[in-house]
Amino acid sequence: MKMALQEARAAFDAGEIPVGAVVVCRNRVIARAHNLTERLGDVTAHAEMQAITSAAASLGGKYLTDCTLYVTLEPCVMCAGAIGWAQLSRVVFGASDEKRGYRRFAPGALHPKTQVEQGVLADECAALMKDFFVKKR
Amino acid sequence: MKMALQEARAAFDAGEIPVGAVVVCRNRVIARAHNLTERLGDVTAHAEMQAITSAAASLGGKYLTDCTLYVTLEPCVMCAGAIGWAQLSRVVFGASDEKRGYRRFAPGALHPKTQVEQGVLADECAALMKDFFVKKR
Repeated sequence: MKMALQEARAAFDAGEIPVGAVVVCRNRVIARAHNLTERLGDVTAHAEMQAITSAAASLGGKYLTDCTLYVTLEPCVMCAGAIGWAQLSRVVFGASDEKRGYRRFAPGALHPKTQVEQGVLADECAALMKDFFVKKR
Repeated sequence: MKMALQEARAAFDAGEIPVGAVVVCRNRVIARAHNLTERLGDVTAHAEMQAITSAAASLGGKYLTDCTLYVTLEPCVMCAGAIGWAQLSRVVFGASDEKRGYRRFAPGALHPKTQVEQGVLADECAALMKDFFVKKR
């Protein structure tokens, strides 16, 4: 999660909503990414989406059944759908997203076997988001 | 929707689950795409996702507020989330997807202002899916 936070800080510095994601497969980091929606002008360029695409390319297969996704913010509906399709075995997220998080809109979006942990380094993850939106105002 | 069906047929011929999508902005087609999850080895490469990315690139902005997405199959949770973020004004889909469609898992995923029409050329869209899975067996 510390590495995901580094990615989130890189997003922050680039003027992007600061979310970072890392995919780990059998103790090896196979993908790291941060939100690029502004740079790419593409709403689908969330950190998780890029990390999933990148991890699949790294493994040479589209399913991530032996992988853990670490992400600094609770995934949105889109990302939760992608996590569901990719069948990640585990998702660990930092801060909760009461407004846009998947648990509010699509609690059944993940694969039934996917384990979810939340609240890891949540304060740091949330503080970065808060700082970003304060700076934006 | 006929053009989206052409895209779906191209997916079928390439051994991909046959879903096609087209984005129209003020009577002009600005994106067309079909499912490429097998070719790209990427679960995020659904027809709608690619069409949204492509349409945003075409317009030079990430919101598709004056656009209609035509898609041969009811969008999944991931694609519905992306449609929500992109704020498409209208979504027209063909066949329903009782198993994986967003209405089952995330009925509130779309932007509240997005109009939805369903059942357009539904029989043709559904027949293509059915043929694909019969062929696969």
